[in-house]
Amino acid sequence: MKRKILKESIHLFDSKGFKETSIQDIVDKLGVTKGTFYYYFNSKQEVLRDIHLAYLEGLLEEQQKIFKDNSVTYKEKLYKIIYLINSKIDTQGKDARIVFREMRHLTEEQMNQIKQKRKEFRLIFQQILEEGKISGEFKDNIRTDIIAFGVLGMLNRNYYWFKPEGEVSDTELSELYLEMILNGISNE
Amino acid sequence: MKRKILKESIHLFDSKGFKETSIQDIVDKLGVTKGTFYYYFNSKQEVLRDIHLAYLEGLLEEQQKIFKDNSVTYKEKLYKIIYLINSKIDTQGKDARIVFREMRHLTEEQMNQIKQKRKEFRLIFQQILEEGKISGEFKDNIRTDIIAFGVLGMLNRNYYWFKPEGEVSDTELSELYLEMILNGISNE
Repeated sequence: MKRKILKESIHLFDSKGFKETSIQDIVDKLGVTKGTFYYYFNSKQEVLRDIHLAYLEGLLEEQQKIFKDNSVTYKEKLYKIIYLINSKIDTQGKDARIVFREMRHLTEEQMNQIKQKRKEFRLIFQQILEEGKISGEFKDNIRTDIIAFGVLGMLNRNYYWFKPEGEVSDTELSELYLEMILNGISNE
Repeated sequence: MKRKILKESIHLFDSKGFKETSIQDIVDKLGVTKGTFYYYFNSKQEVLRDIHLAYLEGLLEEQQKIFKDNSVTYKEKLYKIIYLINSKIDTQGKDARIVFREMRHLTEEQMNQIKQKRKEFRLIFQQILEEGKISGEFKDNIRTDIIAFGVLGMLNRNYYWFKPEGEVSDTELSELYLEMILNGISNE
């Protein structure tokens, strides 16, 4: 039931907006009572937080696989992380939209839980850059902390403008970014 | 008086938060009546919108100067734009903080006005990349639209983590980004 409530809420938050969706709307759609809802969640915000956490935990889990995979180069790991984030916009469009658009409705404590997960993701990303630097694949003078902030900042903003059904696919977008990050745009 | 109200509001929104600041707080600080406030603004949100617009118009004005300056290379123009945004975090810290943190309190119509200004900034940035490509300074296979979205996304997120008083200065941060954007991180 918990998963059903989450799924239906994602659908409603995405189509109507978080603010405009009431707990009554959610339970009506599922044909259950408010009591059922309150058995699993204390508030609508808690549903929103759980959607966020599930989304981020999904990302972290896939990132871990990439991080631990010793069969690929660090450049490939970098590509896979970029693609992981870009492809989510397509495959988990609704969740991603809600994660980014409705974040403002979370309480400070809930935001801190989210921030903790995001930090985890960033630090592992930085670790990949660091190991790639040690391996000699990346330049030895790069500041991996700054690059991690910069690249993730870039990827996190994609949601605002990237249309997976548009002219550029998520694969192409990832390749274009990878090319810029690896080789730059200077013609020399 | 309008400017005084804006200035005092920036101070209060920054220290107390937008939501927690009342119109009464603003007029009390200035020693004027609410009538004076309502002569210039219809609401607290309108003040917030004006702070946003002034911030963006300041950026656009400086961007125009960089855009039209024919005495520098396109790489230098790129650096100047990056530095323009990064340095604002320091010199106009309060305004920048409010612009990014309190954006969520704007109405949809107000957000659209802001988005229009942001788009203007992005398109001029793209134009600089395009001209630099034609001049031969930048690679002729780059997608300037994607690079513009990516680089500005990266810079727009700086606000969340960059501390100008920290170990890395805004000049260094700009140089690190420029180096990555121009030459990449690949060790080849």
